[in-house]
Amino acid sequence: MTPILTAFERSPDRGRGLARDMRVRWALEEVGVAYAVRLLSFEAMKQPAHRALHPFGQIPTYQDGDLVLFESGAIVLHLAEHHPGLLPVDAAARARAIAWLFAALNTVEPPIVERGMALLFERDQPWYAERMPMLEQRVDTRLAQLSARLGDADWLDGAFSAGDLMMVSVLLRLGRPGPLDAYPNLSAYVARGEARPAYRRAFAEQLAVFTASQAPNGM
Amino acid sequence: MTPILTAFERSPDRGRGLARDMRVRWALEEVGVAYAVRLLSFEAMKQPAHRALHPFGQIPTYQDGDLVLFESGAIVLHLAEHHPGLLPVDAAARARAIAWLFAALNTVEPPIVERGMALLFERDQPWYAERMPMLEQRVDTRLAQLSARLGDADWLDGAFSAGDLMMVSVLLRLGRPGPLDAYPNLSAYVARGEARPAYRRAFAEQLAVFTASQAPNGM
Repeated sequence: MTPILTAFERSPDRGRGLARDMRVRWALEEVGVAYAVRLLSFEAMKQPAHRALHPFGQIPTYQDGDLVLFESGAIVLHLAEHHPGLLPVDAAARARAIAWLFAALNTVEPPIVERGMALLFERDQPWYAERMPMLEQRVDTRLAQLSARLGDADWLDGAFSAGDLMMVSVLLRLGRPGPLDAYPNLSAYVARGEARPAYRRAFAEQLAVFTASQAPNGM
Repeated sequence: MTPILTAFERSPDRGRGLARDMRVRWALEEVGVAYAVRLLSFEAMKQPAHRALHPFGQIPTYQDGDLVLFESGAIVLHLAEHHPGLLPVDAAARARAIAWLFAALNTVEPPIVERGMALLFERDQPWYAERMPMLEQRVDTRLAQLSARLGDADWLDGAFSAGDLMMVSVLLRLGRPGPLDAYPNLSAYVARGEARPAYRRAFAEQLAVFTASQAPNGM
């Protein structure tokens, strides 16, 4: 049975690959699982039918037969646990890769989202200029720590893993030019992620959805 | 071998059980694994010796023989995977419990942390009063969605799981009285978590650390 992913009918990021379905698309491409996508309007995401699948009314959801999952981190971990390619076989290395997955989502992403929300929603507020250095500093603290740990390695802990997939996805939210420019090893790390064939296939797929939504006939 | 957890020598929450070692202590108590605690000063957390264990210089870390883990979510999941009591046996139910663990950390906690940071660090700023309703609204949106999903159930998806452990831990950060008061089912849910013998043992242990740090002789 082909699993079904939900994604934005019209992604607010205009096809730049920052919506969270991209993380799951990338994981599916890495493990070689074919999938179908069901597109949702913002209106549909608020409806009870979608809330039954996703309590917080977001995308993505993942349906595979009777199993329904939400949270991109949980979906990526589920795929990594059931298919080879995203987690090491060695038990300790596997646990560490999962720690990086959590670190991406719970330690590195929150200050990046907070900065992004301020850029989007508070740019016209009188306090914007005064608050922004604090938000930039919180992001930079995490980037400096991550850069120090990565050093000159290709990936965070041995071979590419679900932890790298999520960390690269989170860092991409910063945009370029941007805070990553101060850390050449992190910039190269993100570029290594983007260069993976699975990333490129997933990116093309999500971009095609956006491009289609912009076509003259509305399709 | 007894696993070793790191925790604050002097927790900034003054023993209220909000530091992230509490989540791991609670999980260890639920699965009945004895553990040792190594206390760290803020100064020690910045040192290379600790950074080798935790790239972001935080607590908790978890050491079990050669395995070193960071990120409370990853540690709780690791314990839940290796000991019965925190994840259902059924594969689909297990995946859903893990989704709730991620939801607690990546969807519910970030707006709660953002509100908490503003309360702590921006209370004296001229924009505080104007920004706070926006932050409260973001928290309330998540609480309303969570309350709707929980309904009159005891736990989020069947039996108590690692997902509930993390969700209750995250909601406790809101403090009482506070935003939870508007949602009696969420307040009762949190109280059910706190009433578990494992929670109470973990809470007492972390409180004892704080109480000892306040003793007249500094011990």
